Amino acid sequence: MTQPSDKALVPFVSVDNMMRLIHHVGIEPMLRDLAAYIEEDFRRWPEFDKTARVASHSEVGVIELMPASDGTSYGFKYVNGHPKNTSEGLQTVTAFGLLADMYTGYPVLLTEMTLLTALRTAAMSALAAKHLAPAQARVMAMIGNGAQAEFQCLAFRALCGIEEVRLYDIDPAATAKCVRNLARSGLRVVPCDSPEQATLGAQIITTCTADKQYATILTDNMVGAGVHINAIGGDCPGKTELAPAILHRADIFVEYSEQTRVEGEIQQLPSDHPVTELWQVIAGQATGRREAVQITLFDSVGFAIEDFSALRYIRDRIKGTDLFEPLDMLADPDDPRDLFGMVQRAAG
Amino acid sequence: MTQPSDKALVPFVSVDNMMRLIHHVGIEPMLRDLAAYIEEDFRRWPEFDKTARVASHSEVGVIELMPASDGTSYGFKYVNGHPKNTSEGLQTVTAFGLLADMYTGYPVLLTEMTLLTALRTAAMSALAAKHLAPAQARVMAMIGNGAQAEFQCLAFRALCGIEEVRLYDIDPAATAKCVRNLARSGLRVVPCDSPEQATLGAQIITTCTADKQYATILTDNMVGAGVHINAIGGDCPGKTELAPAILHRADIFVEYSEQTRVEGEIQQLPSDHPVTELWQVIAGQATGRREAVQITLFDSVGFAIEDFSALRYIRDRIKGTDLFEPLDMLADPDDPRDLFGMVQRAAG
Repeated sequence: MTQPSDKALVPFVSVDNMMRLIHHVGIEPMLRDLAAYIEEDFRRWPEFDKTARVASHSEVGVIELMPASDGTSYGFKYVNGHPKNTSEGLQTVTAFGLLADMYTGYPVLLTEMTLLTALRTAAMSALAAKHLAPAQARVMAMIGNGAQAEFQCLAFRALCGIEEVRLYDIDPAATAKCVRNLARSGLRVVPCDSPEQATLGAQIITTCTADKQYATILTDNMVGAGVHINAIGGDCPGKTELAPAILHRADIFVEYSEQTRVEGEIQQLPSDHPVTELWQVIAGQATGRREAVQITLFDSVGFAIEDFSALRYIRDRIKGTDLFEPLDMLADPDDPRDLFGMVQRAAG
Repeated sequence: MTQPSDKALVPFVSVDNMMRLIHHVGIEPMLRDLAAYIEEDFRRWPEFDKTARVASHSEVGVIELMPASDGTSYGFKYVNGHPKNTSEGLQTVTAFGLLADMYTGYPVLLTEMTLLTALRTAAMSALAAKHLAPAQARVMAMIGNGAQAEFQCLAFRALCGIEEVRLYDIDPAATAKCVRNLARSGLRVVPCDSPEQATLGAQIITTCTADKQYATILTDNMVGAGVHINAIGGDCPGKTELAPAILHRADIFVEYSEQTRVEGEIQQLPSDHPVTELWQVIAGQATGRREAVQITLFDSVGFAIEDFSALRYIRDRIKGTDLFEPLDMLADPDDPRDLFGMVQRAAG
């Protein structure tokens, strides 16, 4: 075994350690913490080096790299999207991520991000709703009860004070799973037989379904005045969830408009349709909800800065814990020019 | 501890295991194997999804992601370039890489690539020389005796039959290190006091210096008729090693012209100066060396397909060995939709 320097060992958070961290911190506090880190980064949005994700498409899915940098740290996420995976017993989305120091170029954190993405997506949704939904919202409709559903429900409870979630999925087994998992959450959980029933009395409607096609999960008549829509399932070209009529009645908020116009619900609209970037609301440069009857829509596709915030949080939060392993990932000879000598000396 | 499925555990090759693999295979056989994998992929070049690297620059360096895919597998490399690192006791270049299955989007290999990049770069150089250098070349000048130098010398011995290397570096300590490391290589090793002395009688000249600026490592008068130049240090915008006059006397071969025009020696030339992509020579679609007096130049900046080939090789080569560890990197619940339930059940 070689004796690498501290910098050569990259802290690695496995899936197992991520689950321990969630229980160590508590899931609702962790969702609040993640929202706080995202909020902090959205406030300083113009400081970031923003790049559209780099995608590699095949007929059955996509693999993407999502980099972002604030000039001091650099982060990226590897994430796949394969809707057909579920039917083969695999995850639709898996992910891992890395944080590095811009000054040395050395990685400082490698972590699983399948779980972390579920958490940061839920934290992002609830953070947006904190700024856009009616302040007295207590009931949320959750349409699509897959892998993301419970995280969404808990984030809206933790950040927005939601007390009742009304669940609907085309597959009743998904709803049953969600009801079971939320049994001890403190939420009032109401399984519903139709999307119409789910939206009844809801001030917030979250749509999160996984079909890779234009679908109409939400029709115009289901959306009353004053509602906030949190649309997270329309997140790649050709995949949308909302009837276009809803988009015309709503004030639309997005993460990074350049990306959302290609991937989000607004791909159904002309490319000059007015939208507001959420960071402007958070930084006090634009208005969120103006009035009670207004329909607000957060057209969320996920952006690299949210992953950057999540990576920053994990790096900070694991300090002083045993919830990571040092990974021998970087060759680091005593004399940096003597890479070959290091290999030679390892022969013994 | 959870019970992840096979697919959730990603084989990881640490620096330590990469060194063991090198000694297990033998460094010269491994350089030949890598060249064979690169040659195979260069032959089917048009099949690849080619993307220019995604770079994030700071004042002191750069971090890059280099993805490539052949439609079946997807690979990418994370690599930094920080010339000032050496003076701080760190590597100028560190790297790691990942190979994934395009059909599922699941990673199938994570590996250190600092050592692997040194090996694949040397294999690439020697492979190019096999097609471009005079067949009877036995003497190589090696200008720049840093971390890459010994790998280059051994690759040219293994693939091109080089018997003598003539070493020069502005820092004599670097040359001394290189002489020491090559003592038992079977090469005749001649330390030189000047680049002129190094190039004396050499049929191949390799330049590999690390200054991040326009420099003239090789002047016109040092390059005689019939020489093959392997220029690997001019590899980013603003960083070149050759006097422009040499470029006008040489037939120029590159990896991916779109990238080389920005990063290579030819950034000193008009953007329409004729160059040949090496894959065309390897695939039999273009001529390499035509005659004895011709000066050939391989203007190498490194391309993602070479890393893809190296990743493929490691994946194939570690099968049946114990030279990797399974990494718990992908969350993989029994029911793919029950990510939250997996977290809940881990609480116990």
